[in-house]
Amino acid sequence: MLLGSVRVTIREAKSFAQFTKAVEAIVEEATVSFKPEKVYIREMDASKTTMVEVSMPKDYFEDYEVTEAIAVGINFYEVSRILKRARRDDKLEIEVPPEGNMLKLKLIGVSTREFRLPSIVKEMSEEREVRLPVKARVVILSDEMKEIIKDIQLVGSEFTIESTREEVKFLSEGNGQSVTINLRRGDAALLELEVEEELVKSTYGIEYVRKMMEGAKLAEKVTLEYATDAPLILTFQPLEGGVLRYFLAPILKS
Amino acid sequence: MLLGSVRVTIREAKSFAQFTKAVEAIVEEATVSFKPEKVYIREMDASKTTMVEVSMPKDYFEDYEVTEAIAVGINFYEVSRILKRARRDDKLEIEVPPEGNMLKLKLIGVSTREFRLPSIVKEMSEEREVRLPVKARVVILSDEMKEIIKDIQLVGSEFTIESTREEVKFLSEGNGQSVTINLRRGDAALLELEVEEELVKSTYGIEYVRKMMEGAKLAEKVTLEYATDAPLILTFQPLEGGVLRYFLAPILKS
Amino acid sequence: MLLGSVRVTIREAKSFAQFTKAVEAIVEEATVSFKPEKVYIREMDASKTTMVEVSMPKDYFEDYEVTEAIAVGINFYEVSRILKRARRDDKLEIEVPPEGNMLKLKLIGVSTREFRLPSIVKEMSEEREVRLPVKARVVILSDEMKEIIKDIQLVGSEFTIESTREEVKFLSEGNGQSVTINLRRGDAALLELEVEEELVKSTYGIEYVRKMMEGAKLAEKVTLEYATDAPLILTFQPLEGGVLRYFLAPILKS
Repeated sequence: MLLGSVRVTIREAKSFAQFTKAVEAIVEEATVSFKPEKVYIREMDASKTTMVEVSMPKDYFEDYEVTEAIAVGINFYEVSRILKRARRDDKLEIEVPPEGNMLKLKLIGVSTREFRLPSIVKEMSEEREVRLPVKARVVILSDEMKEIIKDIQLVGSEFTIESTREEVKFLSEGNGQSVTINLRRGDAALLELEVEEELVKSTYGIEYVRKMMEGAKLAEKVTLEYATDAPLILTFQPLEGGVLRYFLAPILKS
Repeated sequence: MLLGSVRVTIREAKSFAQFTKAVEAIVEEATVSFKPEKVYIREMDASKTTMVEVSMPKDYFEDYEVTEAIAVGINFYEVSRILKRARRDDKLEIEVPPEGNMLKLKLIGVSTREFRLPSIVKEMSEEREVRLPVKARVVILSDEMKEIIKDIQLVGSEFTIESTREEVKFLSEGNGQSVTINLRRGDAALLELEVEEELVKSTYGIEYVRKMMEGAKLAEKVTLEYATDAPLILTFQPLEGGVLRYFLAPILKS
Repeated sequence: MLLGSVRVTIREAKSFAQFTKAVEAIVEEATVSFKPEKVYIREMDASKTTMVEVSMPKDYFEDYEVTEAIAVGINFYEVSRILKRARRDDKLEIEVPPEGNMLKLKLIGVSTREFRLPSIVKEMSEEREVRLPVKARVVILSDEMKEIIKDIQLVGSEFTIESTREEVKFLSEGNGQSVTINLRRGDAALLELEVEEELVKSTYGIEYVRKMMEGAKLAEKVTLEYATDAPLILTFQPLEGGVLRYFLAPILKS
């Protein structure tokens, strides 16, 4: 094998496919950095309102051969379309040649299906810690969070989260209608609630959060972290390993 | 609690939601009369071709507090959209303040979700008996009636019901094609058949009846009552209580 | 019964419906020849690229009364629309009067539903043997073939089949992407593989083959027969009897 080439294998192609869909929910193209110890993605959407970050340590993979780090720009819309074809128990083999001009996706199952699509060499994504203020941390069942979003979308395009030590409220208004969803400490769907101030309150666009819930297929629970008028951090941690994180800018009410 | 305010509770929000969908099938807006002994709706569609009537006695509700009768005009399209969000085992609480300018819908389940939407005070709907000639009474499994409608809609936009003491026939024609559906006394799907004349025959628009079959989710069987060239009465009686009735003008063949 | 009239009965209306859908996949109108010993259809599509052939011997039917052969032109789009209404356990009765100007379809089940649609008398379809070169014969699970088609359609509009004594490859290219699907002797989805030359290779339009896979609902396996740069023959043989066969012209690469 030549220097700089990549060849990694994932036991469950469908699980990996879910990561690519979670990225595609926010950006069509993204740079994937294959490093000796992990695969890393960080990409902002065109409007700079939201960012997605994926980190998959070496351990996530069945086989992991990255002799020299390489970053390639990939069309996630196309990759998602292809990986949607993965079937249960299909294994996935990903290869990038040293030139970085091509991505080979091999689905190995009942038959062997090899897809090739173009890519280009990119600069490595910087992997600096994002330091954001966090005053409230709310862990909710992912499925419940999806229901909450549907409730909100009936009424408005923005929503406000209000967290106190006892409950979380999601509020929205629009067309003369309003909705308030309450989750109280002790409710089955509210798994954790840590609030460091009397009231932590911030407003976000609901459509972004709806897209981010693509991560719900990866993890049973979602963690929401935020502070008043600060960005929202949504984190999904699949049991199979890897982390998916979204960042969303607040809507500041003047 | 102030005079004239309403606060009623329904054990199964989804069942109530089905009533609102059945109303919305015919009219977008309707006046709901909250009376001390029942909730009552009667509304004609804009073309005066069809009318829907809903009657829900006090007993239908888990709690029923209507201190003074009030009638409010409500957008059933919006209410249906909201109640579609009801989940299994969600309870529903409906409140109207004395001013009648707002409807509060509270879905109580895993979480508590409160929706508010605008309403306006209206005149009470008159609740007079509709006296229509009935010469044939046919009780059919609701699901079977839906199949019959689909068969008819393949072919035409109008259909004729012909009832004799032995059988019911649904006939339609269109585009050079024709369809005849026969249900004979004794057929599993034909639950009751009472015919007072040799032949009772009348024609109706199929699309109206299709919409009325929204009631099928409320009751396993549907009762069709009519006379030759007279209106059709479709009645659904849910086990949980309440009555849903539709009236449909005949198409008179000259 | 008059001379030349047809009256045949099929035990499972839904199975027959599947044959009509398989014809409709290729042509909207087709001539059906009712012969004393079988029902026969052979029809080419308007572009002369593909042909469908259906043969249903007398034995396929529960009752079979064809006193004198007659051929009628039928709108398969309309017939399919009607037969889609067949329910499980519905029996189907087909009648053509001696004039051949009408097709009567009777679905007999919970209710009796009779549809009539116009037809016209046509010349009998010639039933000559199609003699095509066959150098490779591949039998694949129908469901697997459908998956292969979906994989190909992600990438291109044409595909090449390459058969050797050891494996079958389906290849396609488009938009800078490529796909290769491999089935090797011994793979569960590859039921039979007979290849008479070192390499048998031919190219076809994928959309035609996708439509032909309508036959997959009739038979668990599909037989592909072809020779280099020669037509593809797709055959489905339902357990209930009858044969469905498609012929597809190759795309010749200059």
